Amino acid sequence: MRVVQKYGGSSVATPEKIRVVAERVAKRAKDAQVVVVVSAMGDTTDDLIALAKEINPRPAAREMDKLMASGEQISSALLTMALQNLGCDAISFTGAQAGIITEKVATKARIKKVDTKRLKEELRAGKVVVVAGFQGITDNTIWADITTLGRGGSDTTAVALAAALNSEEEPCICEIFSDVEGVYTADPRIVPDAKKLETISYEEMLEMATEGANIMHNRAVELGWVYDVEILVAHSQKDVPGTIIKKEEKDMELKNPVKGIAHDSDVLKISVCGIPDQIGIAGKIFKALTDKKISVDIIVQNVSVNGKADISFTIAEADEDKALDIINPLAEEMGASSVIVNKDVAKVSIIGSGMETQPGYAANMFQALAEEGINILSITTSEIRITCLIEEGKIKDAVRVLHKTFELEK
Amino acid sequence: MRVVQKYGGSSVATPEKIRVVAERVAKRAKDAQVVVVVSAMGDTTDDLIALAKEINPRPAAREMDKLMASGEQISSALLTMALQNLGCDAISFTGAQAGIITEKVATKARIKKVDTKRLKEELRAGKVVVVAGFQGITDNTIWADITTLGRGGSDTTAVALAAALNSEEEPCICEIFSDVEGVYTADPRIVPDAKKLETISYEEMLEMATEGANIMHNRAVELGWVYDVEILVAHSQKDVPGTIIKKEEKDMELKNPVKGIAHDSDVLKISVCGIPDQIGIAGKIFKALTDKKISVDIIVQNVSVNGKADISFTIAEADEDKALDIINPLAEEMGASSVIVNKDVAKVSIIGSGMETQPGYAANMFQALAEEGINILSITTSEIRITCLIEEGKIKDAVRVLHKTFELEK
Repeated sequence: MRVVQKYGGSSVATPEKIRVVAERVAKRAKDAQVVVVVSAMGDTTDDLIALAKEINPRPAAREMDKLMASGEQISSALLTMALQNLGCDAISFTGAQAGIITEKVATKARIKKVDTKRLKEELRAGKVVVVAGFQGITDNTIWADITTLGRGGSDTTAVALAAALNSEEEPCICEIFSDVEGVYTADPRIVPDAKKLETISYEEMLEMATEGANIMHNRAVELGWVYDVEILVAHSQKDVPGTIIKKEEKDMELKNPVKGIAHDSDVLKISVCGIPDQIGIAGKIFKALTDKKISVDIIVQNVSVNGKADISFTIAEADEDKALDIINPLAEEMGASSVIVNKDVAKVSIIGSGMETQPGYAANMFQALAEEGINILSITTSEIRITCLIEEGKIKDAVRVLHKTFELEK
Repeated sequence: MRVVQKYGGSSVATPEKIRVVAERVAKRAKDAQVVVVVSAMGDTTDDLIALAKEINPRPAAREMDKLMASGEQISSALLTMALQNLGCDAISFTGAQAGIITEKVATKARIKKVDTKRLKEELRAGKVVVVAGFQGITDNTIWADITTLGRGGSDTTAVALAAALNSEEEPCICEIFSDVEGVYTADPRIVPDAKKLETISYEEMLEMATEGANIMHNRAVELGWVYDVEILVAHSQKDVPGTIIKKEEKDMELKNPVKGIAHDSDVLKISVCGIPDQIGIAGKIFKALTDKKISVDIIVQNVSVNGKADISFTIAEADEDKALDIINPLAEEMGASSVIVNKDVAKVSIIGSGMETQPGYAANMFQALAEEGINILSITTSEIRITCLIEEGKIKDAVRVLHKTFELEK
């Protein structure tokens, strides 16, 4: 049995916390071959960025990667020392030593392949291998550049290593530890009787994550999906069961098709009003936004009687300035009458793989919200998700009523 | 023209200091291909050691190497960013990227070879290459372990790179920058009219260094000697000429054969008295000391009338406890009558390659000290050095009178 465990920066922020993680790892190593992926200690990454900016306001991406990668190099060596101090045979690996070969793209490289030669050797020799997360190298020579994997990088390292180590003879699972206990049917702070899910499918997890369940990065979930790696998400300090992300099981459909309620208040709605109705207007706006890597959601286009169109869409609140820098000149150029920003909105979603084959969930959702006196501003759906945009002040009520409507507390 | 410059940790201790170094490097890069070797910023190495000891009182050497190497990885990336900020095209290298292959010995690896493939490519592309000093890897694969070179490691990196880059067609020199201006005929704090030497031979430099001239590490001087690399030692902030260490020139002999006066007060004398005179006693003592890496100097053995012997020798004061832990039980075992420690001693030396072919220097030295009322406790000589052990309180007088006697102020 093989397992790849991942601990985030807050789990290894101090020598004391590193010792706690070492104890958990040493325990796991008693009945499995263990690879541990670590992030940099606590604020290390932010401190290094600040140092770089003090020296050069626009540091080259390649140099940033080398600078940042040192953070995980340090935490991996320290965790290894902590394991050795417990009498657990361990060895630390850089991204290079773990054989993680990436694209030649600094700060957000994608993994091309994993050469597990030495990783397997050390595991077979009975060692716990502690891998510096978030990093790789651009080819398999000593002259290769060090790259970092960008957002969700350490999660991605963990899932990629599990995928590379996974085989029929020696199955390998992945365990992602953070400060949450698992995936819940809804945010337990809003719905006190929300239940922790035992399992969830990759697809459902992706929908939960984009809707705000801040547990692990989508990119890593997608990688797990593609390579069929079972991923446990669990709490780094507490010894309680977490949630396993895995392939959808057929008999899931027989149970409740709605798996959970997700919500996201960190959204705002932008409306571009009174645009002369021409073909390609919407395309122009959304291409400009996605070119700047701004994710757009819940798009509604209305054509009014006099041949003028209104386009509305939601974006993350953090992207407001960036988006308006693009939208305002575009709106002027198009002859739009106004650009209206509404921050008083939030999204609530019901998620479940079973929904696609069983009708009626949308109707139930809309009716439940209506009975609670919650007005639906717009709607968007995917095969396994139905999302309503509502007034921000009503979001908690919405989550609670939907949780109850779909009997998720049972 | 190629040059390898080395800047120590105090020269890159802060962003401001890194900027100053970047300006010097950028200036040098206008008329030469420049490689820069940097140490870790200021106290980084000590901080990392403290962090490691907090986690594991006896951290594994391999993990310490990986931890320490991150310090130079950080400073090399930051100096590169500072150079780029000045519009100077630069790139940072780890020890691996610089092709520094070492023995598989953690914390004090020796360099086996330097594969300059990428180094030469980047130099030819017009870039300044900033190399993380003090580190290498154990073989030329991505799975290789990171090693550190131990004491004087960054100096050694610099000289090794200069040696590897040096050729008839493209000569390469090495420039070591620190907080001293060069090599003096004597310590200027003791002899105000001491002169900075324009040149010194490798051999003389080695003698100066062991005698306390704390400018660069002997190991790097020896490497320069073997590969015939010209080494400039100069001040990292001041724009004044330093001292060039190079092959002895024949016409040096025509000038003053005494090159400088060295002194060392950080010594103590241990006497083991009343040892029954047997063959191998001295060997036994000195083998035990060198096994523990304690350097022994100025050994004197007297056989007294009744067949009992006294053995005296000097060691560095820092080694006192370690040495006595070895000597005391040995003395008892041998039936010695007493072990006497005398801290009130110091060494003064005259150094010069020319001395070996011209007699009379020893006599002049002893006479000068005698006329000053300085008692000589013991004497040791090499081909290019004569050293006297004297009372510690007289050391400044001794340095001054010898500087004057051999007319070094001229």
